[in-house]
Amino acid sequence: MFEKIFENLKNKAPLVHNITNYVTANDCANILLACGASPIMADDAAEAAEITSICDALVINIGTLNSRTIESMLISGKRAAELGKPVILDPVGAGASALRTETAMRLINEIRFSVIRGNASEIKILCGGAGKSRGVDVSDSDSDSDSKAVFENAKRLSSLTGATVAVTGKTDFVTDGIRGAAISNGHPLMKRVTGCGCMLSSLLGGFCGANPDEIFDAAVCAVAFMGLCGEYAAQNYVGTGSLRTGIIDEASNMTAEKLNRGIKIEFRQ
Amino acid sequence: MFEKIFENLKNKAPLVHNITNYVTANDCANILLACGASPIMADDAAEAAEITSICDALVINIGTLNSRTIESMLISGKRAAELGKPVILDPVGAGASALRTETAMRLINEIRFSVIRGNASEIKILCGGAGKSRGVDVSDSDSDSDSKAVFENAKRLSSLTGATVAVTGKTDFVTDGIRGAAISNGHPLMKRVTGCGCMLSSLLGGFCGANPDEIFDAAVCAVAFMGLCGEYAAQNYVGTGSLRTGIIDEASNMTAEKLNRGIKIEFRQ
Amino acid sequence: MFEKIFENLKNKAPLVHNITNYVTANDCANILLACGASPIMADDAAEAAEITSICDALVINIGTLNSRTIESMLISGKRAAELGKPVILDPVGAGASALRTETAMRLINEIRFSVIRGNASEIKILCGGAGKSRGVDVSDSDSDSDSKAVFENAKRLSSLTGATVAVTGKTDFVTDGIRGAAISNGHPLMKRVTGCGCMLSSLLGGFCGANPDEIFDAAVCAVAFMGLCGEYAAQNYVGTGSLRTGIIDEASNMTAEKLNRGIKIEFRQ
Repeated sequence: MFEKIFENLKNKAPLVHNITNYVTANDCANILLACGASPIMADDAAEAAEITSICDALVINIGTLNSRTIESMLISGKRAAELGKPVILDPVGAGASALRTETAMRLINEIRFSVIRGNASEIKILCGGAGKSRGVDVSDSDSDSDSKAVFENAKRLSSLTGATVAVTGKTDFVTDGIRGAAISNGHPLMKRVTGCGCMLSSLLGGFCGANPDEIFDAAVCAVAFMGLCGEYAAQNYVGTGSLRTGIIDEASNMTAEKLNRGIKIEFRQ
Repeated sequence: MFEKIFENLKNKAPLVHNITNYVTANDCANILLACGASPIMADDAAEAAEITSICDALVINIGTLNSRTIESMLISGKRAAELGKPVILDPVGAGASALRTETAMRLINEIRFSVIRGNASEIKILCGGAGKSRGVDVSDSDSDSDSKAVFENAKRLSSLTGATVAVTGKTDFVTDGIRGAAISNGHPLMKRVTGCGCMLSSLLGGFCGANPDEIFDAAVCAVAFMGLCGEYAAQNYVGTGSLRTGIIDEASNMTAEKLNRGIKIEFRQ
Repeated sequence: MFEKIFENLKNKAPLVHNITNYVTANDCANILLACGASPIMADDAAEAAEITSICDALVINIGTLNSRTIESMLISGKRAAELGKPVILDPVGAGASALRTETAMRLINEIRFSVIRGNASEIKILCGGAGKSRGVDVSDSDSDSDSKAVFENAKRLSSLTGATVAVTGKTDFVTDGIRGAAISNGHPLMKRVTGCGCMLSSLLGGFCGANPDEIFDAAVCAVAFMGLCGEYAAQNYVGTGSLRTGIIDEASNMTAEKLNRGIKIEFRQ
C-alpha cells in the first residue's frame, strides 16, 4: 500500500499551497521539496483563492495567525473544498489563546478538512474538551494521558468533522472514524527541533495532494515518513541544530523500500 | 574583470535593503553576510524610504507579498531610483496569480530597475507573454523551451525596461540588451533547496551595490557566484538539508581565484 | 552561581513569548528549545496579552517591526509588567530609522524592562546619544570606541530605565547600574551569522524566565552561554552555514560544568 502512495507523490510532484507561520515556513518548504512535492507560500486574501485553485492541496497552519491571514485561510479553505482538493489543518496552539481556539473552531465549522493534525492537547480542545495546551506544546497531563483516551479523542473529532485526524505524540494515531492506526516511528529528540509538527502538516499536503482518493492511507504514510526521517536522523545525533538538517536530508533520501521496511504500524479500531 | 567586481564587494561591504518573503529571508541574510555584504530586512512603509536611503542597494522580492508590503516596495523602489542606487526585482511567482503578475508589472512600470531576475516563466510573463508559471517554479513547457527563446525574452524584457535581465535555469542568461552572457554553472540539485533564486537576487543586491557603475558585470558575477556555490556544495551531497547549509558555507569560502577558475561563461549577442 | 541559574532553566523549562522578526524567528525558537526552554511566537494584538499571561517571560525584538506588531509589543509588554514577568528588549536597528528609534524609545518609556540587549550603537542611541547605527550592525566608530565608553553608556541606560543592560560586541558588558561584568566569550565569526544577537535576546527570555529574582546573574549567564556556543562552534569552522548549525548544536549540548569552565568574566563597577 505505502509504495503506491509514495510513488504517486514522486510521480505527481504535487503543488502545495501553504498558509502557514513564519517560524517554520522555510522548513516546510524544504521538506516538501525534499519529498518530491513543490511548495508555494501565499497568505494574502487578494490571491489566496487563485493560488489554491492552481495547487493540488492546501495546508492551513495557524502558528502565527493574524486577522489578515485568518481571512485568507477561510477564503482558500472554501475554494479548495469547492474544487474538491485536500485541505489540511494544523491548529497550532489551540487552547493557548481564545484567538487560536476560536479560529480553529471557526475553520472546522466553515471548511471541510481532509486531515486535521495536532498534538493531544490541541485535538482534545477541538473536541470541545476543557483542556489547556502548554503554549504550542502538549500539556504534561495530556502527554501522560493514556493512549486510549488520545485515540478516542481523535475518533471523536473525526466523527464531528468528517476529517481524518492525526494526533502526534509518543505514539501517533491516525483515524478516519472507521479505520485506525497507531504508528510508533519517530524519536523523542524531535521535540527539541521546532517545526516537526508543521513539517508533517505540510507533508500531509503533499501526500494527500498526490493521493486525493486515499486520504487515510496518505495520512498514515506521511506520519510514518516524518517519524522515520526523525528516527534515522537521530541515529547520527550530535546536537539539535544538525538534527534539523538531518531530518531534511533523510526526507530527500527516503525511498518506498526504506519506508516499507521502517514503518512501525498497528491497525486498530 | 570578475576579480575586481568581487574585490569591490569585499572592500565595500555594501548594506543591502531587502523587502522580501518570510520563507527564505534567513537564507538571504546569511548568504549576504557570507559573501561579505550586510543585510537589513525592513518592510514597513513608515521606514521603507529611510532604510533605503542608508543602503547601497535595494532588493524587492514578491515571494509573500501583501498590500502592506507592496506599498513599501513602491516607496523604497522610487527612493532608490531618486538616489541612483541599484534596485533588483525578483518577481517570484509572476503568472501564478493576478496579484503577482500585476504587482510585478506595476513595479516595472513605476521603478527603474537595475536588474530583474527570474525563471524562464516569470521573465516570459513580464514580457507580456501569455505563459503560466507552475506556482513559484518554472513551467515544464518553459523549462524545456529552447535556450534561444529564453534568451530572446530576456533581451526583450531588457529593452522594455532598461534593466539588465538575468534568467536562471539549466543555463543562466544575463543581458543588458547589448551584451549577453550564458553561464552554465550551478547544479540540478539546487532546485530541491528553497530559496536559491531568492538568495541570488539578494546577492545581486550585494554585487551591484558594490559596483553600481558595472551592473552587467556585477550581475554576471553574482549569477556565477551562486551557481558555483551550488556546484561546489553538491560535490559533498548527502541530502538537501545539508546542501542548503553547504551553499552558505561555499559562499563564505569563495575567493576571486575560485570564482575565476570555476566560472563557465560564454558571451553572446 | 551559574550552575544554579542554569539548573533552574533546565528544571523549569520556561515558556518564552517572542514578538520578534521573521528573519531569525526559526533560530530563536531552535536555540530556546536547545537550551531547555519552550518558545511561542505570537504577534497579533488579539492574543498578545493572553499569550504573555501563560508564559514565563516576554522577548520584544523590533527587527521587522510594523504598526500591527508594535501595538502587540506594547500590549504584551504592559501585561508582562503587571504580572511581574521578565521582559527583554532587543532594539534591532535603533538609529537606522526614525521608526526604529522612536519605537524603541516608546517601548522603554511605557514598559519596565528587565533586560535591554543591543550592540554599542543601539545602546548609545537609547541613552539619547546622537550616534547612528550601520543598518542593524554596530557603526564602525561605535565598534572601535573604547570599552570604557561602551560600559558607561550601558550604566547610563540602566539608570535611566531600571533595566539590566547587556551590550554585545568584542567584549560584552552587563550591568544593572550597581553590579557590572565584562564577558569575553564569543568569536568574531559570529558576526557573519545572522541572528546571534536575536538568539541571545531570546535566550535572555529563557534564563530570566527561569530566574525572575536573579535578573543580573541570569543575564550574565545567558551572555556567556551564547558566547560559548559561538566559541565552541567556531572550533570546527568550515563555513558560516555550518557555523549557524553548530551554534544550535552547542546550545543543545551545553552543561553547567562546561559553562562554568568556559566563562571568561571580570566583574567591574
